[in-house]
Amino acid sequence: MSIENALNSLQSVLGERLRRSKPELAAHGRSESYFPLTPPDAVAYPQTTEEVSRIARICHDAGCPMIPWGAGTSLEGHGLALRGGLCIDLTRMDRLIAADVADMLAVVEPGLTREGLNDQLRATGAFFPVDPGANATLGGMAATRASGTTTVRYGTMRDNVLGLQVVLADGRVIRTGGRARKSASGYDLTGLLVGSEGTLGIITELTLRLRAQPDTIASAVCAFGSIDQTVATVIEAIQMGIPMARIEFLDAASIGAVNAAAGTAYPALPHLLLEFHGSEASVAEDSAALAAIAVDRGGRGFEWATRPEDRTRLWDMRHRAYWSILASRPGARAIVTDVCVPISALAQAVRETQADLAGAGVAAPILGHVGDGNFHAILMIDPDDPAEFRTAKALADRMAERALALGGTITGEHGIGMGKLGHMRAEHGSAWEVMGEVKRALDPRGLMNPGKVVPQN
Amino acid sequence: MSIENALNSLQSVLGERLRRSKPELAAHGRSESYFPLTPPDAVAYPQTTEEVSRIARICHDAGCPMIPWGAGTSLEGHGLALRGGLCIDLTRMDRLIAADVADMLAVVEPGLTREGLNDQLRATGAFFPVDPGANATLGGMAATRASGTTTVRYGTMRDNVLGLQVVLADGRVIRTGGRARKSASGYDLTGLLVGSEGTLGIITELTLRLRAQPDTIASAVCAFGSIDQTVATVIEAIQMGIPMARIEFLDAASIGAVNAAAGTAYPALPHLLLEFHGSEASVAEDSAALAAIAVDRGGRGFEWATRPEDRTRLWDMRHRAYWSILASRPGARAIVTDVCVPISALAQAVRETQADLAGAGVAAPILGHVGDGNFHAILMIDPDDPAEFRTAKALADRMAERALALGGTITGEHGIGMGKLGHMRAEHGSAWEVMGEVKRALDPRGLMNPGKVVPQN
Repeated sequence: MSIENALNSLQSVLGERLRRSKPELAAHGRSESYFPLTPPDAVAYPQTTEEVSRIARICHDAGCPMIPWGAGTSLEGHGLALRGGLCIDLTRMDRLIAADVADMLAVVEPGLTREGLNDQLRATGAFFPVDPGANATLGGMAATRASGTTTVRYGTMRDNVLGLQVVLADGRVIRTGGRARKSASGYDLTGLLVGSEGTLGIITELTLRLRAQPDTIASAVCAFGSIDQTVATVIEAIQMGIPMARIEFLDAASIGAVNAAAGTAYPALPHLLLEFHGSEASVAEDSAALAAIAVDRGGRGFEWATRPEDRTRLWDMRHRAYWSILASRPGARAIVTDVCVPISALAQAVRETQADLAGAGVAAPILGHVGDGNFHAILMIDPDDPAEFRTAKALADRMAERALALGGTITGEHGIGMGKLGHMRAEHGSAWEVMGEVKRALDPRGLMNPGKVVPQN
Repeated sequence: MSIENALNSLQSVLGERLRRSKPELAAHGRSESYFPLTPPDAVAYPQTTEEVSRIARICHDAGCPMIPWGAGTSLEGHGLALRGGLCIDLTRMDRLIAADVADMLAVVEPGLTREGLNDQLRATGAFFPVDPGANATLGGMAATRASGTTTVRYGTMRDNVLGLQVVLADGRVIRTGGRARKSASGYDLTGLLVGSEGTLGIITELTLRLRAQPDTIASAVCAFGSIDQTVATVIEAIQMGIPMARIEFLDAASIGAVNAAAGTAYPALPHLLLEFHGSEASVAEDSAALAAIAVDRGGRGFEWATRPEDRTRLWDMRHRAYWSILASRPGARAIVTDVCVPISALAQAVRETQADLAGAGVAAPILGHVGDGNFHAILMIDPDDPAEFRTAKALADRMAERALALGGTITGEHGIGMGKLGHMRAEHGSAWEVMGEVKRALDPRGLMNPGKVVPQN
């Protein structure tokens, strides 16, 4: 067997860093979402780019699929070994290679997590701003084009990865982008690889853009009478150019789950969670401008937090919302939707989704990154009830279709993985074929994370 | 002949909008830089995407090269018809299709210029921020990944193009990206096409991100005793997170040329030109913070401009600097260099370049976008003196090599065109081959703007 041949050769290269035990395979075949266990044939723990390149050459020659693996926090089954093969676990490549504050950049290995990076940057005055909630690896975040709560101000991974080192399917090692803040030199391969979900190559080093730690941070919570009022507040703030660092939406059901889990007592209404970064004066000015808009739109119960511990509590609450929601139905698994629409269509998208969910009798709190038009419904299902699964999947499909009809996208930040492949043609039309042509050019044997992103021939 | 066959078919499609007169060909075979006249065999003026698609199908079947054309303001010979063929002039597709301020985006045809767009946006409260100086077409700016004076705050075209409609080599029409502010849905084809210089497809529509017109704008000029002091000021301002909307560098020679052309009397010293955007209070605060850093570093002669006419005068002066410099040597043509380095290496790069230029006896004022680490030396040459050309070209080559040695790029914003092809392997190594593989996947016959960007087989 071709995979067996590859594993035998890899054994001699990696020794005990090639693992085939059942628990090890299971740990790399699971997902945080509703997908069934889909383990690889083996797990490799490389320590250097050169080693990843040797692994790729061996797998390439033997026709063995290669699936990169980070923290395993994907919600769309990115890391599942649909055709078996080798899971390449990059978590042992987790060094901060260099932090260069004069150039406001960091060079990191792919297995370093965002929290690990920011811990090491704390004393420098700089930080890495992309925050998807989960303590994901930076390689995984780049591979899935992650974003999150701070994207409204600092952008997605696409905006914050300056350069990459990548091992291609045949073992070639390339560098893309670099340390300069911009370049017009040839095709943007960095941008092509960010979001390619391991289907074009394996990221073995990243050069990341850093930002100045803000002097002053202020957070706030505010309730609204309706989703339309909530969204109208955000649209007006964006039009006025008020620089929000975070602006998050939680619907009444999400607030209920958070209250139950965290012991808080927010009213059962749509809420905005906000944050401003800047100088003391600019944060004061921006907060006041936002508050004025919000109050005009019926915002109430403003609660400001400037002490670090209060802010931490607030954002921990937000980051734990997914788990709080899951805890509201013990034993449930979740289908997490991730549509993103032009912000002018956001209120409509949320309202129609809520009506659809209510009509189907599915409990699915909604929350999201309202400044980007991105929201998630957490559809809770009994994993042992196929009818419930089908109902929830149909709801999720309708959300994706609704997002496209409103000019949006089927995924704002979670990516395609195996969960969204069925909607790619509807979103991209013949551009999806072009993605397949690019894939075949770089990975003609189809060995890099097969079964994901591109049309499957 | 294959090109002749294509032109005969095109004649029946386009009628008088296919032109073959000598002046028309010459107008589309020239460049703003030092390249020799390289005219196409014909010029087409399509009016719709469908027409561009028909043109592409005809050219594809006949094996006729296709070269997209915008305002013709490229400095690297992007539009030169190196293998003859059809120049596709998109300037008749110049409509603003939609301006949507709720979503802060505009949909435009590729022949609309940035000034044309901003004129039409004036009353909306929104503007399109990318400003390369020249009144280029937005299609051309996307194709070359243009940037310019405002990139330090608002990013390059890569950051401000949300989606594209593109005609591929074989006439297929695809849409990439969309109206949502972010997406994790598949490969970032928008990012791949932005900066591809017409070698992968012809942009026929763009969806652009808009920004809020700032309440308050303040500009300033300030002189420094040395380049090191100038750059140190900028590095410190970036580290502190002071949000500069523009921060431009002019060396003493550039200032001399500007003084001569504009009748100003700035001292013969390195200068910074600055701009801040924001509320009245934040602009006041940011200006004061920057001024404090500058004065600490020996900055002197601060001159602030808040009245629109004063600011316009200042930035007109900056935008005309290229022509002012050329005027300082009547009859000269220019080799314009465009390196971009990590900002920590900028002072060294400028100093070494100045020494190299002085050693060779070539007059070449230096100016650039210091916040991005991007600068230009305008090497003036007598177009009829081959020895002078060779000297200047060698200096330009050394600048590119120096930029790479310092961790930078051979072009920050002007692109590759035909001017920088010789440095691509040095910058990208085997990633350049990968660019060629992508090119062959999308344009296997090599008909899209041949001779540019990728390895030439």
